[in-house]
Amino acid sequence: MKKILVLGGDGFCGWPTALYLSAQGNDVMVVDNLSRRKIDIDLETESLTPISSIGERISAWHDVSDKTIEFRNIDVARDYDRLKALLVSYKPDAVVHFAEQRSAPYSMKSVDAKRYTVDNNITATHNVLAAIVEADLDVHLVHLGTMGVYGYGWSGEAIIPEGYLEVMVETPGGSLRKEILHPADPGSVYHMTKTLDQLMFAFYAKNDGVRVTDLHQGIVWGTQTEQTSLDERLINRFDYDGDYGTVLNRFLMQSTIGHPLTVHGTGGQTRAFIHISDTVRCIEIAISNAPERGERPAILNQVTESRRVRDLATMLAELTGAEVKYLPNPRFEADENTLYVENQKFLDLGLQPTTLSEGLMTEVRDIAEKYSARVDTSKILATSKWRKGM
Amino acid sequence: MKKILVLGGDGFCGWPTALYLSAQGNDVMVVDNLSRRKIDIDLETESLTPISSIGERISAWHDVSDKTIEFRNIDVARDYDRLKALLVSYKPDAVVHFAEQRSAPYSMKSVDAKRYTVDNNITATHNVLAAIVEADLDVHLVHLGTMGVYGYGWSGEAIIPEGYLEVMVETPGGSLRKEILHPADPGSVYHMTKTLDQLMFAFYAKNDGVRVTDLHQGIVWGTQTEQTSLDERLINRFDYDGDYGTVLNRFLMQSTIGHPLTVHGTGGQTRAFIHISDTVRCIEIAISNAPERGERPAILNQVTESRRVRDLATMLAELTGAEVKYLPNPRFEADENTLYVENQKFLDLGLQPTTLSEGLMTEVRDIAEKYSARVDTSKILATSKWRKGM
Repeated sequence: MKKILVLGGDGFCGWPTALYLSAQGNDVMVVDNLSRRKIDIDLETESLTPISSIGERISAWHDVSDKTIEFRNIDVARDYDRLKALLVSYKPDAVVHFAEQRSAPYSMKSVDAKRYTVDNNITATHNVLAAIVEADLDVHLVHLGTMGVYGYGWSGEAIIPEGYLEVMVETPGGSLRKEILHPADPGSVYHMTKTLDQLMFAFYAKNDGVRVTDLHQGIVWGTQTEQTSLDERLINRFDYDGDYGTVLNRFLMQSTIGHPLTVHGTGGQTRAFIHISDTVRCIEIAISNAPERGERPAILNQVTESRRVRDLATMLAELTGAEVKYLPNPRFEADENTLYVENQKFLDLGLQPTTLSEGLMTEVRDIAEKYSARVDTSKILATSKWRKGM
Repeated sequence: MKKILVLGGDGFCGWPTALYLSAQGNDVMVVDNLSRRKIDIDLETESLTPISSIGERISAWHDVSDKTIEFRNIDVARDYDRLKALLVSYKPDAVVHFAEQRSAPYSMKSVDAKRYTVDNNITATHNVLAAIVEADLDVHLVHLGTMGVYGYGWSGEAIIPEGYLEVMVETPGGSLRKEILHPADPGSVYHMTKTLDQLMFAFYAKNDGVRVTDLHQGIVWGTQTEQTSLDERLINRFDYDGDYGTVLNRFLMQSTIGHPLTVHGTGGQTRAFIHISDTVRCIEIAISNAPERGERPAILNQVTESRRVRDLATMLAELTGAEVKYLPNPRFEADENTLYVENQKFLDLGLQPTTLSEGLMTEVRDIAEKYSARVDTSKILATSKWRKGM
């Protein structure tokens, strides 16, 4: 039994993680400022699934499991003093850090959204690190990063390693073999913030001995986990709008309501995916395998499958009869790329991936079809553009 | 004649830069929130030299040169709207960005100072980038970075290149030659912020075509430039306190008042140096050699000489008769390192370095001795510690 603080524990990945960790017998406390729900208000959209308030979620969890999750409404980026006081009083063994703005299109939507994303994400991460040091606790910080830190420029040429890359450097004394943090090549302001986070983790691990695990996660698909399925009041959010909806979940919703599957550009972008049920297992595995004090941050690639976007669209079109529509790409990125990602560490630590072929139709039946009457079709198209004039 | 906005133009490097660029016939506007003067108030210390208010400085410059420098009191990190409005109305050709907290010991002094440094520096840099994009101007951004982004871990093995490092990577298809941003290994929260800045420059150059030059500057020594010497009201600041005083200027002051030269650790740290007169020339050279839109950021090492700290102490002890005292090192760093730095780009572009052997005694005579009665000896010792328990 560990004491675990889940920052951002009301969100799409955070909530099922909090439930899973609680189900495993840990003492779990959720910290969230409910910003994700508030952004939905501004975007005038909402989750396809009818999510309950955090209070209702927590009491439903107590009803079905007899376990108590505590909740604190704290803005990790804005209220350092309360964050630190909580660390001092709760004394967690691990802090799971999801408390960041996590949409790439949202981060490119406007100058306000860019500035909010940088301010919120960098300040939140730095506050957590500074508070752990000031509180003088030996906490294991587990952070949700992104595969997007690596970029796709080297695709087809190199296998993306787990965080660190071995290189040879020429020196006057001969060749030198060095293991370096993989060069960063973010594709949006959101992804950029995660590359900044990495450097803060490296510094605080080196200077202060903070134990950090950084999880470079692929695109998450799916909605429910074993725990969120136990009661409708526990249901996880399902975003389908142009900003927060992830590609596969958008296709699932589109196929259900008879909307064409919207592929941007040629759909030749290869991306790495993971099911939400695997996300929560990976986090538990990461918590159980902390690096030692003084070690550099542990980095794992939290992905299970790599697919081309147009292949996913085709797969779903075949399953459901939906048509595929190619739209201009609002992102500034390569039209086509390949991607080979190393994910051996999680497999070695016991992860058994949920595959797309197993999980897709369950999602269509249990989520997309069931809640299709809640779709606001005006929110489906992606409107954020990466550069002026696109 | 260029229109140049100097952000942080009231500071130690900013003020002489603003004067130099004005003297060269450019239209110069200074933006500063005067934070450096306010930090002195909190630290209960002040410049060894009696610096005038920014208003008095500007009118003195008009008296001696008949040139007008405009000034705006804007906090670049806190007042995005006024920054953007100024860009839109002034339409600068170049923006020189000094508007960051620039002391490593200060950045490690307290949790408040760490948080202020991260918040101020990251927000300031991101605001400048976002405002340039939003204002839709083809501005050349010239940023003052630091040699500290490289770290000293590879010392003695490799020559520090100008920003980008050529490496070989093994792939399934054979060896791949790549030029990457030199891996970051910052030694303080302050240095860390400059490594974050680099990633923001790379992203905005790639995504938005912002033209950026990042200058990785060594430790600046000296006080006066040709322009700041013209009138005592133009005098530059000289910091000798344990937080903001740079090592060589501290030795100069110490030798003058009969204080032992305070060397931390063995003094075996090799660092790169540059005289303030060369700083201002380098910035003018950088402004005149902008990268094209769409190019990656240009990076130059703004340094002229590398020396071991104890060798500098010995040199000054021999010149002035001062004794050298070895104190515990409050920094978390290697006791000894070598350092080979490439600075060929600036030499090729015409920089003629001021050497330590030429300039040192002028500093002792014209600054340290002249103003020695202003020293508050209680502020000499460095008190910031890098880690708990040091």
